Amino acid sequence: MSAADDLARLAINTLRTLSIDAVQAANSGHPGLPLGAAPMAYALWQRHLVVDPAAPLWPDRDRFVLSAGHGSMLLYALLHCAGYDLSLDELKAFRTWGSRTPGHPEWHLTPGVESTTGPLGQGHANAVGMAIAERYLAHLFNRPGHTVVDHRTYALISDGDVVEGVAQEAASLAGHLGLGKLICLYDDNQITLDGPASLAMSEDVGARYAAMGWQVLHVADGDRDVDAIDGALAAARADTARPSLICVRTTIGFGAPKKAGTAAAHGSPLGKDEVAATKRALGWDPEAHFLVPDAARAHMAETGRRGAAAHAAWRARFAAWRVAHPELATRWDAAWRGELPADAAAAVPSWKAGESLATRTASGKCMVALAGPMPWLFGGDADLGGSTKTIVPGGDFDRTGAGRNLRFGVREHAMGAICNGMAYHGGVRPFASTFFVFSDYMRPAVRLAALNHLPVTYVWTHDSVGLGEDGPTHQPVEHLQSLRAMPNLWVVRPADANETAAAWKLAAARTDGPVALVLSRQDLPVVTPADAAVERGAYVLRDPDGGAAPAVALVATGSEVVMALTAQEALAREGVAARVVSMPCRERFLAQDQAYRDSVLPPRLRARVAVEAGVTFGWGDLVGTEGRVVGLDRFGASAPGEVLYERLGLTVDAVVAAARASLAAAAR
Amino acid sequence: MSAADDLARLAINTLRTLSIDAVQAANSGHPGLPLGAAPMAYALWQRHLVVDPAAPLWPDRDRFVLSAGHGSMLLYALLHCAGYDLSLDELKAFRTWGSRTPGHPEWHLTPGVESTTGPLGQGHANAVGMAIAERYLAHLFNRPGHTVVDHRTYALISDGDVVEGVAQEAASLAGHLGLGKLICLYDDNQITLDGPASLAMSEDVGARYAAMGWQVLHVADGDRDVDAIDGALAAARADTARPSLICVRTTIGFGAPKKAGTAAAHGSPLGKDEVAATKRALGWDPEAHFLVPDAARAHMAETGRRGAAAHAAWRARFAAWRVAHPELATRWDAAWRGELPADAAAAVPSWKAGESLATRTASGKCMVALAGPMPWLFGGDADLGGSTKTIVPGGDFDRTGAGRNLRFGVREHAMGAICNGMAYHGGVRPFASTFFVFSDYMRPAVRLAALNHLPVTYVWTHDSVGLGEDGPTHQPVEHLQSLRAMPNLWVVRPADANETAAAWKLAAARTDGPVALVLSRQDLPVVTPADAAVERGAYVLRDPDGGAAPAVALVATGSEVVMALTAQEALAREGVAARVVSMPCRERFLAQDQAYRDSVLPPRLRARVAVEAGVTFGWGDLVGTEGRVVGLDRFGASAPGEVLYERLGLTVDAVVAAARASLAAAAR
Repeated sequence: MSAADDLARLAINTLRTLSIDAVQAANSGHPGLPLGAAPMAYALWQRHLVVDPAAPLWPDRDRFVLSAGHGSMLLYALLHCAGYDLSLDELKAFRTWGSRTPGHPEWHLTPGVESTTGPLGQGHANAVGMAIAERYLAHLFNRPGHTVVDHRTYALISDGDVVEGVAQEAASLAGHLGLGKLICLYDDNQITLDGPASLAMSEDVGARYAAMGWQVLHVADGDRDVDAIDGALAAARADTARPSLICVRTTIGFGAPKKAGTAAAHGSPLGKDEVAATKRALGWDPEAHFLVPDAARAHMAETGRRGAAAHAAWRARFAAWRVAHPELATRWDAAWRGELPADAAAAVPSWKAGESLATRTASGKCMVALAGPMPWLFGGDADLGGSTKTIVPGGDFDRTGAGRNLRFGVREHAMGAICNGMAYHGGVRPFASTFFVFSDYMRPAVRLAALNHLPVTYVWTHDSVGLGEDGPTHQPVEHLQSLRAMPNLWVVRPADANETAAAWKLAAARTDGPVALVLSRQDLPVVTPADAAVERGAYVLRDPDGGAAPAVALVATGSEVVMALTAQEALAREGVAARVVSMPCRERFLAQDQAYRDSVLPPRLRARVAVEAGVTFGWGDLVGTEGRVVGLDRFGASAPGEVLYERLGLTVDAVVAAARASLAAAAR
Repeated sequence: MSAADDLARLAINTLRTLSIDAVQAANSGHPGLPLGAAPMAYALWQRHLVVDPAAPLWPDRDRFVLSAGHGSMLLYALLHCAGYDLSLDELKAFRTWGSRTPGHPEWHLTPGVESTTGPLGQGHANAVGMAIAERYLAHLFNRPGHTVVDHRTYALISDGDVVEGVAQEAASLAGHLGLGKLICLYDDNQITLDGPASLAMSEDVGARYAAMGWQVLHVADGDRDVDAIDGALAAARADTARPSLICVRTTIGFGAPKKAGTAAAHGSPLGKDEVAATKRALGWDPEAHFLVPDAARAHMAETGRRGAAAHAAWRARFAAWRVAHPELATRWDAAWRGELPADAAAAVPSWKAGESLATRTASGKCMVALAGPMPWLFGGDADLGGSTKTIVPGGDFDRTGAGRNLRFGVREHAMGAICNGMAYHGGVRPFASTFFVFSDYMRPAVRLAALNHLPVTYVWTHDSVGLGEDGPTHQPVEHLQSLRAMPNLWVVRPADANETAAAWKLAAARTDGPVALVLSRQDLPVVTPADAAVERGAYVLRDPDGGAAPAVALVATGSEVVMALTAQEALAREGVAARVVSMPCRERFLAQDQAYRDSVLPPRLRARVAVEAGVTFGWGDLVGTEGRVVGLDRFGASAPGEVLYERLGLTVDAVVAAARASLAAAAR
């Protein structure tokens, strides 16, 4: 064996032993993947990946996603050895409170972690999103003689990733788009948590990816044959017309005498004795813990040297490009800051009282207005763009990178995860659209957007039984409340076109989390002012005529605001003074200070009615003990929307009756 | 053309024109699929499908799933023409209030509809579940010389189905299991709602299914070549070792002069003129509406004649089998009724105060106890059976039908949809297990179970930040409340082993909807009696010592009940009398009468504290204006579980402080 081989083996075993030491110290974690996948990770990081550990956020770096996030220690070991700001002490604090080495990689926490992974399939789809963002930005910003965006996306995926639907949807789209700069290393260890993968899986993974338009390569001995992995990576890079899958046959828990090749190595610490035995089998000192030999450290610093040089060269190119294309540079800065430019905000239209249009239609007009000044607003739909009104001028995104409407196909879950990948990548502000009821399909990805503070905008239309004939499978009922339960997601349900415009400005400016726009299929009259205080979450839309103090508050969202206004008039005829509160966004309202909240819903105003075409669950804290809720605690039905409102009791009469009941309760 | 061909064409055009007439009458719906897919539907129903319109629920009938549920009118036309109890007037009432012909097929509403479809991918996966149930029951009940279970499952799938992740997960499992009695007709019309399918799809669908272990057949002219479809169906039936995919090339909107082959035919009525023109093109009287020619009706009655004969033959076999195997017959009856037998209920264990075990562990013991007397309890896990403790004796379900643990692989969404398919099929009581956080992956299927009153049991373990080191991606926070928002789902979070046993009895007896068991990873002390009133949803677990009237109610679920009990003692030392209410199931509690609810939470007892390791959202209606909630309004973190409880403020001290605050508020 050559000296280079020895050095490679030393480095690989450093990654392996760091991983099993940390899992053992935490007495929790997954040692099996790092032992088996260290060689492919080494080959990629040592010889191909272009990253600068001193500048983890350099925009034109290659991206590496550990989709098999349970193997997090492998990533932390790589980051440490490559010279990222992640100390050995952090590795020793694996899976403990306050460390930057959590059980699964978390994007906002650890330098060099490109994506939060662990829920299987998500990272694979994130990587597809990153490769899409790269292509989009390359087309947007590169100019002849000036290349400022040109990098690859790599992912390490596992058995779980190749069976999860979200990953398969994403892989299918990646093949369709010919994402030649996307390269996935498949850790084919044939073991899952519960036993051999053959318990539940017997497909030809390579053939499946080939059918989806991928180049498929194979490495027979991923435990030892670094050069074969290296060669496959070179072949993958050489094919720029197709994404590449490299199937690498490995042994889970490689080196562990008793547990290698078994599910026992997957998700539990090896145990002290097996750790020592593994080290002996790898030619390592069993008494050494968290050892990074000097020679290994010096060798693995190569990744950083290569990356720093590439980064320096890029900086020079970037500076020349800025000089040559100052208007593009201004755009670039705004895109990467994720801001809402003043001209974009000013372009958003407003509507006059008396007009009537669906909020989905108003949203479409807002998007067209924003699209011009915000070319980094980039997303698409799951085969419903005609219905969600989310198609903007500029054509469909394709293999050239031109076009800005991303046709996700009927792949809602991947749409969500791909948008997360685009947001992780940076430089674009992604949006995703489908019918609101299908937000359920996207939910795991929405959660990860919320957890990771990703500024993704969801355009979810057909927001209630008001959509009519398509019936209960298509009618959201519980979705508003079930999404409001999710931390850090803003759910905005505008009352009309003007609130929709304000909602879009809110969404386009948010930088620390996702915003869901929940929009009507049916036309709604314009009843709010052009400066509707959507950003405050709720506001007094109309107080009783003549300055009378309100006796009851009618709190409504979306299409039910006009119902509350009508009820207010009916109550006035009975001599009851009612306040109408429009509440497009519960989360924003609860984030206001107590004084503002009390000004909208004074504590003494205990008679309250909430009105929303969805479940009544979840309104209790806002309406209080004496309050009432007019909603819908059942699934919908197939009939015209107005018939459904009537038949299901979503009527002005019901609101008036609820107001009376609440007044009576508050008077007791 | 032969007379037989003429008759076939007449029948096919009857299906086509009924469909476009109904869509036009409703002025809403999807005419494109029925026009293109009528020939394959005709070939299947006329020549292969074994159903008895007079006995739509005959257990051994073939199953037919229209996975492309938007083409519902095709199914209604088939049912009408085959002689099901679905009148022409019902077809004329398509998509209107109270009809049995809703926009998308609904299982509980229309005789002959085997599955509620519309959300794409679900029906395809349901069909996989039906084929699994058939194999399981065949193995369970057939005996030498006595075959009482032997039928096929057919599905009509669309472009959307072959890209949706849930369907691909299910197809992968179907290939793995070699479900030879599953046959899917793929309506390859190359058009989706937004335009040509090539907008977002360019994979080789057949090659993909072949890679997953399917037999793949092709029909070049699905618009006209009934014999080719017939031949492919025969070939599909002949291969009993693999599921079959028949790719049938069709023209969406076939016959419509202006709209055929375009997205315009997909989801909107053709319009009066185009309907007339289509009829002319099909050789139909343009003035005839909802016409079923006598010859067509007589011809299509053949399906029912064949089915009735098969049914009669089955009845004879079944009667002989009942005589030969009375003990099996008793089981059969119980299985199809879906009941909890007395011996099964009696077998469920109980535990003594002082013992301590995780509720997932208690659940595992309950399942083992139930498995013997309830062989129709049949399900599995998404590669986490070792962690969810859901493996029961009997080995893994395989190609022979033996074994009763269904290894779904890392395919949570398909697991949910397959369990729905098994429940639609009947004769089994399905369960599905994974980590609670991954309930998000299953959510669209859970919703359909709730909507369709399917008795599926979810065993969701690792129910809070108490799971510890795996970190926020694995820690449910919003899930309890987001699922409680869903109509007709019972969410049960037991406090300890005894409540777990009661929860299993509740789940195993429910026949009108799904039950979710939400279980701890960590050990919990046994604090409730063996007869815990879980079926009432909530009950007074412990009142103040010495008969003092409680001043404050502490309402807790799951692992937080013991925290409430400890807080009760701490409050007692301060002289505050507290009642502890265990609330394992909000939905059951709200279904009790007012008197019972008031006995647990008396209206005058306005000082209330809810305690749950999840978001505080959604407790307002139970704790009221003066109440407080101790919960967790953020995502979790990676650290040992007990550290997280302390750091995140889920402590006895916090409960005591909240009780004081609520008492103060109630006193104001």
